[in-house]
Amino acid sequence: MTRIDPMPNAYRPGAGNLSPEAEAMVARRQALLGPAYRLFYETPLHLVRGQGVWLYDADGKAYLDTYNNVASVGHCHPHVIAATARQAAELATHTRYLHDGVLDYAERLLEHFPPELCHLMFTCTGSEANDLALRLARAATGGTGVIVTENAYHGVTAAVAEFSPSLGAGVALGAHVRTVPAPDAALGDPAARFTADVQAAIDDLIRHGIKPAVLIVDTIFSSDGVHADPKGFLHGAVAAIHAAGGLFIADEVQPGFGRTGDAMWGFQRHGVLPDMVSLGKPMGNGYPVAGLVIRPAVVAEFGAKARYFNTFGGNAVAAATALAVLEVVEGEGLQANAAKVGALFRQGLDDLASRHAALGRTRSAGLFLGTDIVDADGQPDGTKAGRIVNNLRTSGVLISATGKRGHVLKIRPPLVFSAGNVDFFLDRLETVLRAQ
Amino acid sequence: MTRIDPMPNAYRPGAGNLSPEAEAMVARRQALLGPAYRLFYETPLHLVRGQGVWLYDADGKAYLDTYNNVASVGHCHPHVIAATARQAAELATHTRYLHDGVLDYAERLLEHFPPELCHLMFTCTGSEANDLALRLARAATGGTGVIVTENAYHGVTAAVAEFSPSLGAGVALGAHVRTVPAPDAALGDPAARFTADVQAAIDDLIRHGIKPAVLIVDTIFSSDGVHADPKGFLHGAVAAIHAAGGLFIADEVQPGFGRTGDAMWGFQRHGVLPDMVSLGKPMGNGYPVAGLVIRPAVVAEFGAKARYFNTFGGNAVAAATALAVLEVVEGEGLQANAAKVGALFRQGLDDLASRHAALGRTRSAGLFLGTDIVDADGQPDGTKAGRIVNNLRTSGVLISATGKRGHVLKIRPPLVFSAGNVDFFLDRLETVLRAQ
Repeated sequence: MTRIDPMPNAYRPGAGNLSPEAEAMVARRQALLGPAYRLFYETPLHLVRGQGVWLYDADGKAYLDTYNNVASVGHCHPHVIAATARQAAELATHTRYLHDGVLDYAERLLEHFPPELCHLMFTCTGSEANDLALRLARAATGGTGVIVTENAYHGVTAAVAEFSPSLGAGVALGAHVRTVPAPDAALGDPAARFTADVQAAIDDLIRHGIKPAVLIVDTIFSSDGVHADPKGFLHGAVAAIHAAGGLFIADEVQPGFGRTGDAMWGFQRHGVLPDMVSLGKPMGNGYPVAGLVIRPAVVAEFGAKARYFNTFGGNAVAAATALAVLEVVEGEGLQANAAKVGALFRQGLDDLASRHAALGRTRSAGLFLGTDIVDADGQPDGTKAGRIVNNLRTSGVLISATGKRGHVLKIRPPLVFSAGNVDFFLDRLETVLRAQ
Repeated sequence: MTRIDPMPNAYRPGAGNLSPEAEAMVARRQALLGPAYRLFYETPLHLVRGQGVWLYDADGKAYLDTYNNVASVGHCHPHVIAATARQAAELATHTRYLHDGVLDYAERLLEHFPPELCHLMFTCTGSEANDLALRLARAATGGTGVIVTENAYHGVTAAVAEFSPSLGAGVALGAHVRTVPAPDAALGDPAARFTADVQAAIDDLIRHGIKPAVLIVDTIFSSDGVHADPKGFLHGAVAAIHAAGGLFIADEVQPGFGRTGDAMWGFQRHGVLPDMVSLGKPMGNGYPVAGLVIRPAVVAEFGAKARYFNTFGGNAVAAATALAVLEVVEGEGLQANAAKVGALFRQGLDDLASRHAALGRTRSAGLFLGTDIVDADGQPDGTKAGRIVNNLRTSGVLISATGKRGHVLKIRPPLVFSAGNVDFFLDRLETVLRAQ
């Protein structure tokens, strides 16, 4: 199959069956926003409202949101929107003045980390957090080499896009970047293989005169197709980058804040200690706030010779909103819910797979699930996955696809997802599978 | 004078006369946020509330905000905070679904640009906007060379920090970056000199085998000490970069949205047409929203081979908030107010300078003003400027200092500043000058 775009589930202009209204809106969007934007689905979705796990389109049709990991505590959570509104009406200024809010939040958040990880720096996006991590790593190690997985996504700044291969061949990787296969249990012992691959990448960097600075992984390997087990498979690779004088960065922008169920952060499932941890998407439930948690030794050199100021990063409203999100995650027991409901979800998908040949293996941790879609020979089938994603949309359920071949269903609902929501999802999926 | 930090008006730990409470708060901040953060003032300010042009500290003391250009329509403007709260309660999702809000805003904003600049891409910060501009420019020109002024600030991503010399010697400029003096009217005809300097930088890049990609300037040259006149001094430099196959980027993060009084955007004062225009700080009056306005030809190549997605960039709440800000700028006539009150402000500073030898030249456009502080010989005096900034803070007025030598008073109040506010400022400044 030839891909027009490396992005799974991208709308292809002219390909869909659009209403005149949607056609006009797509054209208006093209005229105003230009050619670099992408929409989801064969028939793009026009959303107007969200509440909890539900999104509503312009015709009032409801969709079960089984995809959007930003609105992690549910769309428009009253505790969160109240905190935003309250603080926005009081003060919205920045970190060059003293303010309690940003410190209160940092203190509360850092309680969820091992004691070695005790500084928090604020940015507005996960991209900025990973970009800052790179700057700190270069200063701390004197190196520049970066190792990532072969379909990783870490962000869109110029520096970070250079190590985000999932952006596709149109975005060149840096000469200082090496890619390794994700730790896929289907291909043999992932721990041993991942360690060996990372070591080979380190050796290759050094052979080219490039000092390794960073091994960075999304600890759930979302864009590589979701790889969660067995726990501990990161150990050897982290030891290898440390032995080479480099740092290990856990990108928790997607798996963080309790989603994996087993732990607050994906790296904890694997029993490793990162040098830096980047945070983003669910941190403000939609408010643009992100950050980087750091071991002090890593920022000492940078802090002595340079400063970091992000005008909106850690402003009073960002801090108040993020604190409210954390209070909901803690107060509503969302990590435990992700574990419990995630297990039901996994069981349901495994059951369904026993009856439908199109469903292959599911890999998951909590409410982060990836299910292979396969053809009659059991081979990855990205086209079929795309059809399933679009048919689910028609029947009122939102997910997307991922992986290098776009054949993995990507399932990441808000963490307030219930057992009833799982049943709804499975029922719709089975209907879609039957109609294939 | 030896600078501890290249940042003017930075708090130096241990140097101030702090209350026990402030001392504890600074220590807590250091422990939680680490060593890369900086505070303003010899005695940092602990703010708790803002309203219009006023900020209030923890003791209830009021400060006239003559510095913060983010809260451009005034702190906590009711129309803006209502829009944020309303949209946050309705939907906060992203640009991969269709949504009217982001298109309505783009349409309204683009009406303020020449027709050639007709696409808007959304980011969360000005840094991200300039970083995206660099990515687009590389794709469009095939070049990498960047030309900036010698104390420019354009942002903090890894790529943008490489062309932000005001971050200080601790942050290395890129090998592909050339700096030129800002167009300072005190040093002879700024138009001719700036054109010649930019041409020399282009020639030097080419001599080193580096194809020029970008000339980027903050159109008010804020961190270079504020350089506004004569209008038109950018013409020759823009023609030179175009002739070399490069692009001209107007960084309007600071001067944009009516602040210069003469025009909505600083570049318009100089009668040039940029290829891209970056926007940030005041765009959401504190809500993290920023963007890049682009000529279609500049993004065609990038859009054909790559995509751009910024999870929070242009989300529904960002768009609603930015629209509300624009409505206030238009509805309250803030550009006209900036022109009118800015002229009074300028006149008042010139009058004061005729009576106080410490005040040198003022350069200004609308409510963006820079006033030189000089010693008895008329030479730049950064130490004295620092003292004035700190004494103004004590007497209830907030400004800061800028320029390579930190000797320029940087004055950029919210655009709702009144003639009475100007009188208040001038009265306090005169008292401070008398006490020098």
